[in-house]
Amino acid sequence: MTYKALDTKSVIAYIKSRPAVGHILPPDASLSAKEVGDGNLNLVFILQDDNDPQHSAVLKQALPYLRVAGESWPLTRERMHFETQALLLQNKLAPGRVPEIYDFDEEMSLVIMEYLGQHEIMRKSLVRRERFPKFADHISNFMARILFFTSDLYLTGVEKKKLQANYINPYLSKIQEDFVFTNPFMESPENHWNPEIDAAVQAVRQNSQLKLAIAEMKESYMTHAQCLIHSDLHTGSIMLNQNDTRVIDPEFAFYGPMGFDVGALLENLVLNYLSHYAHTPDLHERTEYQNYLLDMLREVWNEFARKFEELWVENALGELMPARYWDYPGGVEAFAEFRHHYIQNILRDASGHGGCKMLRRMMGIVSVWDITSIQDLHKRAVCELLAIKIGSRWILERNQMTSIEDLIDIVLDETKEVNLSMS
Amino acid sequence: MTYKALDTKSVIAYIKSRPAVGHILPPDASLSAKEVGDGNLNLVFILQDDNDPQHSAVLKQALPYLRVAGESWPLTRERMHFETQALLLQNKLAPGRVPEIYDFDEEMSLVIMEYLGQHEIMRKSLVRRERFPKFADHISNFMARILFFTSDLYLTGVEKKKLQANYINPYLSKIQEDFVFTNPFMESPENHWNPEIDAAVQAVRQNSQLKLAIAEMKESYMTHAQCLIHSDLHTGSIMLNQNDTRVIDPEFAFYGPMGFDVGALLENLVLNYLSHYAHTPDLHERTEYQNYLLDMLREVWNEFARKFEELWVENALGELMPARYWDYPGGVEAFAEFRHHYIQNILRDASGHGGCKMLRRMMGIVSVWDITSIQDLHKRAVCELLAIKIGSRWILERNQMTSIEDLIDIVLDETKEVNLSMS
Repeated sequence: MTYKALDTKSVIAYIKSRPAVGHILPPDASLSAKEVGDGNLNLVFILQDDNDPQHSAVLKQALPYLRVAGESWPLTRERMHFETQALLLQNKLAPGRVPEIYDFDEEMSLVIMEYLGQHEIMRKSLVRRERFPKFADHISNFMARILFFTSDLYLTGVEKKKLQANYINPYLSKIQEDFVFTNPFMESPENHWNPEIDAAVQAVRQNSQLKLAIAEMKESYMTHAQCLIHSDLHTGSIMLNQNDTRVIDPEFAFYGPMGFDVGALLENLVLNYLSHYAHTPDLHERTEYQNYLLDMLREVWNEFARKFEELWVENALGELMPARYWDYPGGVEAFAEFRHHYIQNILRDASGHGGCKMLRRMMGIVSVWDITSIQDLHKRAVCELLAIKIGSRWILERNQMTSIEDLIDIVLDETKEVNLSMS
Repeated sequence: MTYKALDTKSVIAYIKSRPAVGHILPPDASLSAKEVGDGNLNLVFILQDDNDPQHSAVLKQALPYLRVAGESWPLTRERMHFETQALLLQNKLAPGRVPEIYDFDEEMSLVIMEYLGQHEIMRKSLVRRERFPKFADHISNFMARILFFTSDLYLTGVEKKKLQANYINPYLSKIQEDFVFTNPFMESPENHWNPEIDAAVQAVRQNSQLKLAIAEMKESYMTHAQCLIHSDLHTGSIMLNQNDTRVIDPEFAFYGPMGFDVGALLENLVLNYLSHYAHTPDLHERTEYQNYLLDMLREVWNEFARKFEELWVENALGELMPARYWDYPGGVEAFAEFRHHYIQNILRDASGHGGCKMLRRMMGIVSVWDITSIQDLHKRAVCELLAIKIGSRWILERNQMTSIEDLIDIVLDETKEVNLSMS
């Protein structure tokens, strides 16, 4: 079938032609389709059985519109290919943490998957100060399992390289390379920022120490093929409720640095933390929720680190290093020290990458809803200036980080003054 | 044509069937074939026109014998594929520094190329204390051009990733992963070493700080996809004479760390330096030639660093970073600092990787002829023990290296005592 963008009518005929979806949406059922995508990059249809709305699915189709490097069509095709392949693999390695895939069609650049009608995009819920008691456990599990099981710590060298070859994702990687590490930090027409923080934005763009460090983080992103990363793991790529957590939208997946995924998540929790200076005027309410967010951040990292190391100890099968390498007097301790260094380096990378991403959200092509939903530009600037200070320090001080407390301390330190002035 | 190992008779019929070689060895010429390979991994035939021996070629065919990871056949096929593709690309990027390829046949796992009858394998010449006034210039040119032009410093992100995908080389990489970074440093049946250095070998295998650092270098080798490296750039992969230098045998080529190639070369010069404690008993002669080797080592690095930076300044086109990123007051200096850091990191990686390779030559599956050609095991041990000391320090002190003098100082420092005792 040649590519053709679907609409609410043709999508129903299409889905009835797919036997793999028959057990979810029977071909003789009366179906309704609703388009809920932003119409920019993807069409997203929710399909439901009129007689039983529990019978439902989402069909997501890439539109050949996004122009990057002048290559719209390969980008469109690749996007859905990588998203589908990554979701299938992630569901195998961390069962239940991503939407289930029912069917996909590479020619049509579409995927049909589980409809998450009972879940909400995480950053929306966090702005409303909701709490998710299972989140840290779920997401640390997801990250530890995916990052570990696709790395040289678990796979043989040959297995890893074959998987890596399947995830060379040049057009999508280019988007992150440009919009996370490059364009926000120089003049580029798509950049936008709050005029109230203009001086701080210009200062970042002229701060040589920062620019050097950002270039180093970009080198890490482009060359450190450590494991299969999601590569866009912010709180807009997480859907959750009190009982469940799902990671969506892995179209940027490729072999990159572990710290990029971890840093994306930590950084987005900090941006949400800062947004409450505007969203939550009540001091007590704000402090309590901000503390909750810092606890979440701490728990996410600590649980990730613990589970990652546990997986490593229990499955020390990977090409780097075989268990026998550590089999000598003192080897047990040396292996433990190696694991400690390795995990500490993930934290340092997370600090650097998280910092870059924090900055780019303030001055690049895309901000975050947590902050753009603040109407008052002055209040918004308070949060944004703090993000720039914290992000800059996460980057510049990354190689001194020894525990998650060091990252948290920077948040507490930089927000001290505003806490005083607003109390 | 299905794969079939050639012999001195069938190779002549075969080559006459290849039109691409007709201009070198005309089909109506009377040809002679001589097999000069070690018969272990490859067949190597020298083909010459009986009436004009200047008309000649080498045919190299991979044998399906080498068993690694139980995969002999894919390894055989891949080996010749990567060698041929790398030679073609290297000849394009650094013209004249590799043998010219006349023809290749993937089905037959063979390549037909220029016969280097006027060249000799470098380590043999160095043992005979020959001097090569053009070598440092040639090899620094080769390394600077190949490493730079295949990296993110020159290519666009999309170009680099497409090239990288073509050089995912899992079976060959596995050989280096095992035999450079792993097996020599634990018990493994193929390891062998001079019994006179047994205590030092066992000490390395139980030295936790060293084992940790070696594991870090292995991680760098397996994950730092910086550029297309040769990945076996020792003085046995270099053929030269007074006027010319050629790099051969790039079958291990893949996207890896720049420092691995640079380190391989520097390390092999040091091993040759050490071998003269046995090969060159005359103090004056020895000192003079050892100084010459250190000058060569210094010049190779300094010329590499200078040319690499020059290429970068003149061709700042790569995805990491665009020139515009540095376009602000102070940006010129920041870009210069970034280049300085980047090149210094190549030196540090070269120190770490070179150190690992120096050690593995003393206690792994393959030694170097410079040293194995020393008949007296006691004299040989003198060189080997120094290599272990120097290699260990290159590894452990790698992150303190700021110039090539730091690597040289370790050589001078560790050989001080033996110089005194032998003078």
